[in-house]
This record gives sequence, C-alpha cells and structure tokens, in this order.
Amino acid sequence: MRSFERVAVIGVGLIGGSFSAALREKKLCGHVVGAGRSAANLKTALERGIVDSIASDAAAAARGADLILVSAPVAQFGKIFREITDHLNPGALLTDAGSTKRDVVAAARTALGAKIAQFVPAHPIAGAEHSGAAAANAALFRDRRVVLAPLDENSKQDVEALAGLWSAIGARVSRMTPQEHDEVFAAVSHLPHLLAYALVDDVSKRPNAAQLFGYASGGFRDFTRIASSHPEMWRDICLANSDQVLKELSHFSGELEKIRGFLESRDAAALEKLFTEARAARERWLKGEYE
Amino acid sequence: MRSFERVAVIGVGLIGGSFSAALREKKLCGHVVGAGRSAANLKTALERGIVDSIASDAAAAARGADLILVSAPVAQFGKIFREITDHLNPGALLTDAGSTKRDVVAAARTALGAKIAQFVPAHPIAGAEHSGAAAANAALFRDRRVVLAPLDENSKQDVEALAGLWSAIGARVSRMTPQEHDEVFAAVSHLPHLLAYALVDDVSKRPNAAQLFGYASGGFRDFTRIASSHPEMWRDICLANSDQVLKELSHFSGELEKIRGFLESRDAAALEKLFTEARAARERWLKGEYE
Repeated sequence: MRSFERVAVIGVGLIGGSFSAALREKKLCGHVVGAGRSAANLKTALERGIVDSIASDAAAAARGADLILVSAPVAQFGKIFREITDHLNPGALLTDAGSTKRDVVAAARTALGAKIAQFVPAHPIAGAEHSGAAAANAALFRDRRVVLAPLDENSKQDVEALAGLWSAIGARVSRMTPQEHDEVFAAVSHLPHLLAYALVDDVSKRPNAAQLFGYASGGFRDFTRIASSHPEMWRDICLANSDQVLKELSHFSGELEKIRGFLESRDAAALEKLFTEARAARERWLKGEYE
Repeated sequence: MRSFERVAVIGVGLIGGSFSAALREKKLCGHVVGAGRSAANLKTALERGIVDSIASDAAAAARGADLILVSAPVAQFGKIFREITDHLNPGALLTDAGSTKRDVVAAARTALGAKIAQFVPAHPIAGAEHSGAAAANAALFRDRRVVLAPLDENSKQDVEALAGLWSAIGARVSRMTPQEHDEVFAAVSHLPHLLAYALVDDVSKRPNAAQLFGYASGGFRDFTRIASSHPEMWRDICLANSDQVLKELSHFSGELEKIRGFLESRDAAALEKLFTEARAARERWLKGEYE
C-alpha cells in the first residue's frame, strides 16, 4: 500500500476527525495536520490527539502534504479548492468527504484546472446527528460504505491507493458516477432528512406544540433523529442536489396521494398490503439481502 | 388500592401481555386469564408465565373477572364487546388499550348499552415494532404515558382505580377526551407511521430498489423503524382515525410544499432557519422541556 507521510485534513469535524483518528490509530501515515474554520474545534481535535498539528489555513495545511482530505459542508468546497490549488504537491492525492458529488466535482474542475487529475472524489457514508471533533472516533468507518466517484482524469494508481486506505480503516468501498451518487442519496438520505426536519417543524409551529411533544414517544424520536443533523451541512446538500431532491419530493408526494386515496375510499385491503409489503422489504434489508 | 382477584386480558400481545406480566410481577392481582385469536400466541404467553390460564374465548375469559383489559387491533373491538357484554360481572371494571379512542368508545356504547358506565377507555403509549406475547415484558410501561379518556358515565372510583393500577406498574397517567386523544396521536404517531411506511414502499417499488437499499444507512434505518410495525394494527388505526389522519396528511403536504418553494427559489437562509429551528425544538423535547 502507498504510504502517506504528511496528511492534511481540511475540516476536522466528525468525518474529517474520524478519518484522521483512524489513520493515526492504524499507523497509516506519518503526520496529520488539521485546518478549519473553528479555532475551538481545532483545539479540541489537537487535545483529543486526533491531529498532530494545526495549520493556520487550508493553503498552509496543503503545502507539502501527499494526501489531502477536504471534509466540509459542500458549499465551502469552491473556496477551499481555490485556496489550495497553488499549494498542491505535484504527486499529492486530493480527495473529499462531501455529501454530494456533482457540485463538488464542478467546483474542483473550476478551481483546480489542469490539476483536476489529482482529485479523486469520495463520500464516506457515516453521518450522525453529532458533529465536530468532539464526536470523532477512529472506529466510525468500520463496516460503513465509502463511495468513490473517480474521474476519467484520475490515475488508476491514485484511485486504488485511496480505495486501499479506506479499506484499511474498515470501510467497504464501492464506485459510482457523480450523477448516480446524487440520485441514490437523494432517495435514501436527502429525502428522509427533509421529511424528518419537516415533521418536527410542522409539529413545533402548532399552537399546541407543547402538548403534542408531550405525547410523542419512541417512534417519533427515532423517526426524527436525523432532524438533529447539522443545519448548515443539510442546507448545502439540499441546494447542491436540489434537482434530484425535488424529483424525490415529487415522487414521495405521489406516494402520499396514493395513500390518501386508500384512506378516502376506506380501502382496508390496499392499506394492509402496502404496510405488509413495506415491513417485509425493510426486514429483507435489515437481513442484508440487498447488500 | 382496589385489589383485583381475577383479571381477564383479551388479546395477549405486546401490550396485553406486558400489562399482565407487570400485574403479576407486582402481585397486583390474584389470577390472570388470557384469551385471543391465536392459539400459538396464547401458548407462548402461558409458557412464558405471562398469564395463569387460557380461556377458550373472550366470553369465557370475562366471566367472573373483576378487571377486563381488551387489547387488540381496534377493528376487533365491536366483536369483542358484543361477545363479553352478557358475561360482565356487575362490579367489573372494563378497560382497553386501543390505539384510537373515538371508534372504540362508539363500539362500546353500541355493544354494552347500559353497561357503558363500566367501561373506562385508555391507551398506553408503548408501541414497538415487535409484537406478540413473545415480546411482552413486565417493564414495558415503566415511565411510559398512559392516557385515560374517561366517559361521563364512569364512576370516579373506577377511573381512580384504573389510574392507580397503571401508576403501580410504573406508567405516567394523564387524561384527555377521546376527540383530543385522536387529534394528538394523529399528529405525533399516526402520521409518522404512515410516512415511514410510505418511504419504504416508495423505495422498494423502484426498479433499482436493491441498489437504493444497499446505500441506505443508519439515518434511513431509524427513520423507517416504525415501518416494521404490525400491519393489521396500523390498517385499523388509519381507518378508525381517518378524518384526523387525512387532516394531518394535508397539513404535512403543505409543509412539504413550503420546503419545495425554498428549494425552487434556492432560499438558503429559509432552509437553514427551518433546519436550525427544527433541531432546536427536537433538542428541547429530548431534554424534557415539553413534559
């Protein structure tokens, strides 16, 4: 496996911090330098031993690094790529942990120009409602999926080196195109997040919100867990992937209209069939039959 | 506290079975007899020591009982009330664990006639995606809410005896009218269940369902946990409470239209505000500020 002497992590939050912690635990790199917007968060990362040192900005972190991970809300990527492009080592491998891929690739092409070949897009699927370096841990990616969305310009060696690194810290690596990635995650991640936020917003704005929350129980808690996710991160995801998210919203609204029809016509058989089939599909999924 | 010598539990599932197990553990009754549709489930209940004996039918269970709990999918209540009405002891307290209250009260009035005073409606809020006597446990109601929805005809003594019993097995008892109950639970329970079933149905019917499930992760799992709930029970709830559920569906569709507007106009500030406020409301709820 290719060895990385100096690794830069730009954005030492849950994902960036856990990546760094995992590399250090497995001794897969020499030194990790962290950079980011919040000095307090970087201090936490240093105190927790998640990074070896802190750089004053993204450019300083990137200088001399042979691996650079950008892990930030996706609207930040253009700015970060512009900051680091003049400081990339010729042989450095640049990658990311952005939640959407078409917009990140577009931002990279604009900012990096001919250096685009050095950028291998990726998305580790390991979100949580906790964020920041305080929540980072070396085991986060164990058995989690990481999607690589390589570009035509990438070298086979770089893509394989990155895949090897993620595998070495326990992740299950697969590949998709940026378009395919954004379609899949609009359906199974972005839409559910929007629905969870929407339900909490809907309930919390009622005149009797206190009473309603007072009777909400475990089902409501789990259904809305992802409504405790990072607002800025999810704002950026929804806007970066708005065409696919809107498509999913329309699809789901059609599904709700179907159910409304069953209720209005009091079609007990259709309701029970839908519930039974949904439960069965979910049980098959939990058993790993869709892996 | 009033002591109950012979308790009948009609429907020894998760709720009925846990009620029985809790009464027996706390020695709050002499003997529990169970009845229900599934002989296999009743056998499990007997083998697990959840009930003392099994009756051949609801009428036989009710005969001689001084407390009767009916715990079944709500569409069953009319039939069960008709079966037991001629077998009620004059002093017996009849109650239920039905998930909706207006329909159960209406069914009770029709079947019980003048004996309606003996029926104190109730709803313990302790669902789970596991069902049946196999999932029952004496601790299920600890710190869970139980809503009593007493009728004008009920005696103060009966209502207090029932409240005392639920408190004695750890539940937090409160009171609502049947109408208020059905409005509140349409918003915080019935709608989320429908949305979870709808999302799984939506995903599972796609041509690329296997791929989509393959990338669904922890957020999707928790969001859809309640889509593993009992299909017959939820069919009955949705139909029994269809007016309120349809009202909630409309309200939620309006919420989704609002969010669609934010996405179409790329209103980053409005999206972030909604996400931030929803997260804050959920955090307040988790901290118990709405209790």
